[in-house]
Amino acid sequence: MASSEKSKQVVKRIKRRQFLGGAAALSSSSVIYPISAAPDSWRTPGAPFSNYGVAGDEQESAIRWITSNPAAPGDGVSWSPLHELEGTVTPNGLHFERHHNGVPKVEGAGYELAIHGAVEKPMAFSLNNLRQYPQVSRQLFIECGGNSSSYWLPEPARAQVGHLHGLISNAEWTGVPLAWLLDQVAPTAEARWLIVDGHDAAGVTVSIPFDKAMQDVIVALYQNGEAIRPENGYPARLVVPGWEGIVNVKWIRSIQLARQPLMSRFDTVSYTDLQKDGRARRFTFEMGVKSVLTSPASGDQLASAGVYELRGLAWSGAGRIDRVEVSADGGANWRDATLQEPVLDYAWVRFRAPWEWTGEAAILQSRATDSAGRVQPTRAVLLEEQGNNAYYHYNGIVSWAVDEDGVVENSYL
Amino acid sequence: MASSEKSKQVVKRIKRRQFLGGAAALSSSSVIYPISAAPDSWRTPGAPFSNYGVAGDEQESAIRWITSNPAAPGDGVSWSPLHELEGTVTPNGLHFERHHNGVPKVEGAGYELAIHGAVEKPMAFSLNNLRQYPQVSRQLFIECGGNSSSYWLPEPARAQVGHLHGLISNAEWTGVPLAWLLDQVAPTAEARWLIVDGHDAAGVTVSIPFDKAMQDVIVALYQNGEAIRPENGYPARLVVPGWEGIVNVKWIRSIQLARQPLMSRFDTVSYTDLQKDGRARRFTFEMGVKSVLTSPASGDQLASAGVYELRGLAWSGAGRIDRVEVSADGGANWRDATLQEPVLDYAWVRFRAPWEWTGEAAILQSRATDSAGRVQPTRAVLLEEQGNNAYYHYNGIVSWAVDEDGVVENSYL
Repeated sequence: MASSEKSKQVVKRIKRRQFLGGAAALSSSSVIYPISAAPDSWRTPGAPFSNYGVAGDEQESAIRWITSNPAAPGDGVSWSPLHELEGTVTPNGLHFERHHNGVPKVEGAGYELAIHGAVEKPMAFSLNNLRQYPQVSRQLFIECGGNSSSYWLPEPARAQVGHLHGLISNAEWTGVPLAWLLDQVAPTAEARWLIVDGHDAAGVTVSIPFDKAMQDVIVALYQNGEAIRPENGYPARLVVPGWEGIVNVKWIRSIQLARQPLMSRFDTVSYTDLQKDGRARRFTFEMGVKSVLTSPASGDQLASAGVYELRGLAWSGAGRIDRVEVSADGGANWRDATLQEPVLDYAWVRFRAPWEWTGEAAILQSRATDSAGRVQPTRAVLLEEQGNNAYYHYNGIVSWAVDEDGVVENSYL
Repeated sequence: MASSEKSKQVVKRIKRRQFLGGAAALSSSSVIYPISAAPDSWRTPGAPFSNYGVAGDEQESAIRWITSNPAAPGDGVSWSPLHELEGTVTPNGLHFERHHNGVPKVEGAGYELAIHGAVEKPMAFSLNNLRQYPQVSRQLFIECGGNSSSYWLPEPARAQVGHLHGLISNAEWTGVPLAWLLDQVAPTAEARWLIVDGHDAAGVTVSIPFDKAMQDVIVALYQNGEAIRPENGYPARLVVPGWEGIVNVKWIRSIQLARQPLMSRFDTVSYTDLQKDGRARRFTFEMGVKSVLTSPASGDQLASAGVYELRGLAWSGAGRIDRVEVSADGGANWRDATLQEPVLDYAWVRFRAPWEWTGEAAILQSRATDSAGRVQPTRAVLLEEQGNNAYYHYNGIVSWAVDEDGVVENSYL
């Protein structure tokens, strides 16, 4: 692509009138008056009330894709449909899931969270106990360590953005700060790690540093206002702001305080990254700085040239997103996107920027910078640093190639 | 009640250790080690994945109460169960509803929003058009003008807080700023009001000042991340930050720009307040400054003396909540509650404060102050100012009486 062609694809600041002009061009049915008649069937007495609402027929396309083990259908993942979502809240029915042996049926009555080990006063907390403790609410993303793993492969996968990057969701979690419960059991000086397990049949067990637990970890009881659903950990799950999904233990059963990590299979075999030199980097708890355009995105078909709003999501395990830039020429030129307020630590940020598509080939990208000063790397840099033995923790820049027909596809640039 | 008894009920600042001591007293099963065995049935391979998740059996108690007209079941309300919710997001299945003739089945294909009247270029926007326009996301409450209306009655109603105050919910709404669409149709100098109607069979039609429309009104397409469900206005509804529910028109059909309001029945017969002098105060668009304790609350039974966390919600149609105070002695003494960050304009704020219940009678209250300096009035003051001819827009202080047995009931103090 010649540089003169490239420059036409640069993301520009566009004034309101210009944008509207562009959008008007997209409208095939503009300037209609009097109002066109709606079908008579729309204006008949409608459906009655419901106690608990459901998504309508027309929203049924927004579903989680499921990838699971045929021999053990409870082992797998379901992907949040990022290409169907807007804003920053993921509704509970579309929150991504990663289960190792299905959704256990844990009952609230009889449930106890035990905290023991290197403590002076081992205790067990019933669900009613937990509900009476002081609560905190935070909007937080949870991202599976294996999200975006197809990008370690030599060829770009063909899929919609939710199926490529949808092992992440963002919700408002409410529960008890774990520090309150740890205070109560009186940890001894030996307590450097927490060994946490869940009630699922896979026996998920992970190790978490004591300092993080005292800092901001939550024993969550509510997700987006309502009691956590079974598939997301009812009656209680651990929520560990900014840290990889596996340590956000669902159906939390017990916390053992210990001098050392357990080095369970979830600490070691899974969720560790094999480096170039054949050694594994363990305990990559904190998720990287990352962003992805959700619209336009892989699998989309642009109808015609004109002005589009680039939309996407950004997040960081280190804290806040400070900046997101977008490019339409594969990274030669960048321009700041607008970040939707409020911008919160460890939460999704929705970003938006206008882009005029001239009808020529373009490569759309986004690049996030976080409050720790980390800048999202290109895939090339990530591979150069890490080799391609890794499977987890991909946070490289994502490129969507737009061709002259408006077809948008995943690209390695 | 003697003043010495009263002082025991004052809400106090309580240190973490004290709180924990109190909570420990509530824990009947503390100090259990080794971990008590969970039922074997919990640790068997669990349920498989689902495309769209549902609430579990144990959450089924969190439902919307329905109050509807037996002769026309689509005319009525369903109440958000505030006593079952935590945090500030209302899940879509539990968002309150007020329909005048049920939920119409409006299809996305063929849908158009017409904008006409005092404009140079009348236009109709398809759903695809609207989706391509620039978007904004905001967390906003929507409150029915008739919420809390039982408080105008001479005797306090006996019900749970959701059934008394649950005609309000809070969600993240995403859509097109109406100002963008109005810019495109080029309003004439005559355009002082918007006359907006919906596709429902009741023909809901309201009048909204042009200035508000240009300021912050949204044509919302998404609620909490997903496409708005039919029951909340699919494919598009108006969201009018801080203003009474009726103007947040669902299934929005058309906007006519005009010199005068229409004075439809929804502008006049409904949602206006009859004053002491027999004259009606019309167009009370902006909702008052308001708060309510959701826990403990009417219908609860405190199990034993000890430390409780008072929890509640506050909001204002004028902007931000600056302060919430709580009282345990019917308003004689007040203390600031903690506001959960982020505190946003026109959105719910969750507030919390510790309270030690000594086992004696108490009256719990909360009092909100907003960024416009308005302080939530007592019921007595509100009645003195307005008389008791009114039905809408009750925002007085709510009192929960706790008796010596721990029974919590609605009270007029």
